Amino acid sequence: MAYIIDGKKLAAEIKQEVAQEVQGLMGKGIEPHLAVIIVGSDPASQVYVRNKHKACQEVGVRSSIIELSENTTQSVLLARIEELNTDKAVHGILVQSPLPKGLDEQEAFQSISPLKDVDCFHPENVGLLTQGRPRFLPCTPAGVVEILVRTGIEIPGKYIVIVGRSNIVGRPLANMLTQKSDRGNATVTICHTRTRGLSYYTKQADIVIAAAGSPGTIIGEMLNNNCVVVDVGVNRVEDPAAKSGFRLVGDVDFESAELVASHITPVPGGVGPMTIAMLLRNCVKAATSPVSPPWQGGD
Amino acid sequence: MAYIIDGKKLAAEIKQEVAQEVQGLMGKGIEPHLAVIIVGSDPASQVYVRNKHKACQEVGVRSSIIELSENTTQSVLLARIEELNTDKAVHGILVQSPLPKGLDEQEAFQSISPLKDVDCFHPENVGLLTQGRPRFLPCTPAGVVEILVRTGIEIPGKYIVIVGRSNIVGRPLANMLTQKSDRGNATVTICHTRTRGLSYYTKQADIVIAAAGSPGTIIGEMLNNNCVVVDVGVNRVEDPAAKSGFRLVGDVDFESAELVASHITPVPGGVGPMTIAMLLRNCVKAATSPVSPPWQGGD
Repeated sequence: MAYIIDGKKLAAEIKQEVAQEVQGLMGKGIEPHLAVIIVGSDPASQVYVRNKHKACQEVGVRSSIIELSENTTQSVLLARIEELNTDKAVHGILVQSPLPKGLDEQEAFQSISPLKDVDCFHPENVGLLTQGRPRFLPCTPAGVVEILVRTGIEIPGKYIVIVGRSNIVGRPLANMLTQKSDRGNATVTICHTRTRGLSYYTKQADIVIAAAGSPGTIIGEMLNNNCVVVDVGVNRVEDPAAKSGFRLVGDVDFESAELVASHITPVPGGVGPMTIAMLLRNCVKAATSPVSPPWQGGD
Repeated sequence: MAYIIDGKKLAAEIKQEVAQEVQGLMGKGIEPHLAVIIVGSDPASQVYVRNKHKACQEVGVRSSIIELSENTTQSVLLARIEELNTDKAVHGILVQSPLPKGLDEQEAFQSISPLKDVDCFHPENVGLLTQGRPRFLPCTPAGVVEILVRTGIEIPGKYIVIVGRSNIVGRPLANMLTQKSDRGNATVTICHTRTRGLSYYTKQADIVIAAAGSPGTIIGEMLNNNCVVVDVGVNRVEDPAAKSGFRLVGDVDFESAELVASHITPVPGGVGPMTIAMLLRNCVKAATSPVSPPWQGGD
């Protein structure tokens, strides 16, 4: 039976570290400050924003929530972002996705100052990450890497199969894990919906990262014995027994996978809490004027 | 015996297409114009710059070569780039690599306006490419894709192993070939110097792209029968029989590989000519005010 990785516990560790860093900054008169813009009243988005707010409070990061009405125009949204861009007391800016129909999310993300782009969605930051000199690490991919590192799972030299090529998870992860770095140097295969014979690839992997956004994408018999499974999926499935009428499951069939894997992350309680912890870290980084590390890609 | 792909011939086809586009633009009063900055007197760089200049002339793209002395300061270099950025008659700007020691190449590349960055080295353009909405395609990776397409080799669904993770070739290629697109949708593995058992991966591939920068990286017995081999390497090896004392070889041992592969590109005469053809295409694109295509990444 696989060791079940406790993402909540790891996230709590990181939050403690961040809280200490925040204290240090406070001593220098810097109060890290995250501004989150939410447009409209999507219930799931409201939960996400509330969770981020709570996490900020836990570690001493100031958090402002800017609520804009459902019928906000693009130009009003952009003007609001620009205000935050020029506000020296604000270090990090998030625009909660999805935006109501009619609003251009891509343009909104791109109008956030790259120096305050704690989600790492701005093309310039995506480019710097791709080139191996990140200004910020995208939260969910960074959370995945942190889980591996803190669980003592070596990355260099390993064969990692990533299932999913989204711009938020799969693709940046592939670009991170193949960099010349202690947290990279893996051989990585990117699989996706057009991959022929997915299990052919997953069967060979030392580490499988499921980020496909579809329950049951990975089942036990698709895995190599003693592999490590990181499940990034968060899917709602109907469950009449649950009070809410649904429950959250990952992309991995946990029951069959835990019989084969050496380590596995659960959903919920795996990657999710790590994502928020990484966001807090980015806020601290943004507050200490982000620069690019000198290391780069290569051979 | 493998079919030997004639990169020169394919490049000539593309040049003809570009020449026609240039004629069309001329009719509208637009003369595509590439400015190339070369600092110092590195002989190889001078050959590259001359070749680009010649290629521009062949298709009717105006080409200006700005020669700066070996002891140019960074601030003078940046000022020269800024002049070209604001010069409306200039559409594309290249800074020939490598720059003399003491100059910051990365800063120079980043100071080129992203709208004139025909090499696609600017982080913003790298980010847009990574996100699947490229403004420009980087020349060598685009040349590799074009070789496959024009040779009638399907990319979607194929298993492609890329050997090399450089920011100029391997990494952008991986990001391109995995996009949701007719020229993507491949399952891609990125291998590099820290990959354990390279042949394990190359043996499985439908298409092997060698971009490691080292002769003999790939030999015949590392290949799957009837695979396609694209050799991006350009390496000088000593050759007393040659007038210059050296000859150019790729990363692939051609003699043994051509016995196993179904298709193979030679060095020279494979990817090299395609790179310049793609640069010309980018110059035309830059002259017609580059915009981002609407397609994006995804599942």
